[in-house]
Amino acid sequence: MTTSVDRPSGQPTPLPGYVPPAPIPDGIKDVPGLLRWETTPREEAMALAAELTKESFTYDEVYGRFVTVHQYIDAPPRAVYEYLTDIRHLNEFTYSTRDFAPTDVPDVYQGRDVLLDDVTKIFMRIDGDPDALTVDIRCAWDQGEELWMNYLHRIVPAETVLNKPGSVVIWTNCRHPYYDKNPYPELAPSPERPWVGDMWPLFYAGHQVEMDNLKKILEHRFGGDAAS
Amino acid sequence: MTTSVDRPSGQPTPLPGYVPPAPIPDGIKDVPGLLRWETTPREEAMALAAELTKESFTYDEVYGRFVTVHQYIDAPPRAVYEYLTDIRHLNEFTYSTRDFAPTDVPDVYQGRDVLLDDVTKIFMRIDGDPDALTVDIRCAWDQGEELWMNYLHRIVPAETVLNKPGSVVIWTNCRHPYYDKNPYPELAPSPERPWVGDMWPLFYAGHQVEMDNLKKILEHRFGGDAAS
Repeated sequence: MTTSVDRPSGQPTPLPGYVPPAPIPDGIKDVPGLLRWETTPREEAMALAAELTKESFTYDEVYGRFVTVHQYIDAPPRAVYEYLTDIRHLNEFTYSTRDFAPTDVPDVYQGRDVLLDDVTKIFMRIDGDPDALTVDIRCAWDQGEELWMNYLHRIVPAETVLNKPGSVVIWTNCRHPYYDKNPYPELAPSPERPWVGDMWPLFYAGHQVEMDNLKKILEHRFGGDAAS
Repeated sequence: MTTSVDRPSGQPTPLPGYVPPAPIPDGIKDVPGLLRWETTPREEAMALAAELTKESFTYDEVYGRFVTVHQYIDAPPRAVYEYLTDIRHLNEFTYSTRDFAPTDVPDVYQGRDVLLDDVTKIFMRIDGDPDALTVDIRCAWDQGEELWMNYLHRIVPAETVLNKPGSVVIWTNCRHPYYDKNPYPELAPSPERPWVGDMWPLFYAGHQVEMDNLKKILEHRFGGDAAS
């Protein structure tokens, strides 16, 4: 299945009377440096694209500012959404976030992140949009007043984008400046504990592994082939 | 600004009576191959992450199945949303999609993609969710009955994820099987015209360039420094 267009038969037909925009619309006349067909011929654009397409990319080139991991999961989108928005499941699919207890602030939980020691506090709130199937896990180490770490998830029906049942999960972290400098060093359980941002060069690996945990757990429960 | 927690002062405080889940919760006892702190010690997990973190990655390792490009744009999220959901703007920021006219199917437009020749038809519908700030551009070459190409966009307030005004745009394409095999070869304007999927190895470059076009146009119109 893909996105089918609801028309009895045949192709959608353009309505009469259409006037196309000017080749270089007014709104972009003064914008420098655009790469558009009218001003950069096909051959030149293809050559530029080929130049940008390197045989290999360094970690920083790909994951320096944004870390996105992707996964196909053979489970219904709604099931993935329900799973990801239940904070108790963090205990299951993450490597090291555990034991979230509710606090006196609605929807904010306190738990532990045992990635580096046994006592680092992590505060967390999960904001989900059930229609858009977005799940944003907002959290922070040591303190719960600024939840600046954002794990942005989007769940997409695989029917639409891969022509098969199940879900695609897209998970992005953006490099917030606090990753580079702990804004509350005095709240760390010890001055020797490294900062979460020191691990940025391992985020791709760490998040892909947790996404793979998620896939294994959900396919075990919901998957067609996996569950049989 | 980050996500501030609404509490008069001090840290959120755990409520009494919390019982944490078992270290290995029932729901995952039978799931093989999970990487969790209880069963894989820190040192071992870090070593594994380091092993997965290569000095360089090939194009296929990073962009073989999913192509995500990211960009920071100094323009309000709502302005980015309004811009991306207006089909006439495709004429401006894409390299080669042009002249979309409405058809007799509601919300489906027919235009041209002049990437490879002057006559390739492209059909398109833009599905936006103004609350979630997602914009899905669904389209196809040659025919408009199955809009199987999905350009998935998500706009995120940069305040939340980068601590500054503006927007982060995340744009993902998933490798639908039709990219590998044109399902309607008889509708191509000529048998010699290459297929859109033949360009998959250039998608990262092509989409990043179009995202940069988008940034230039929107910062020209809305940006703080850029507009001054």
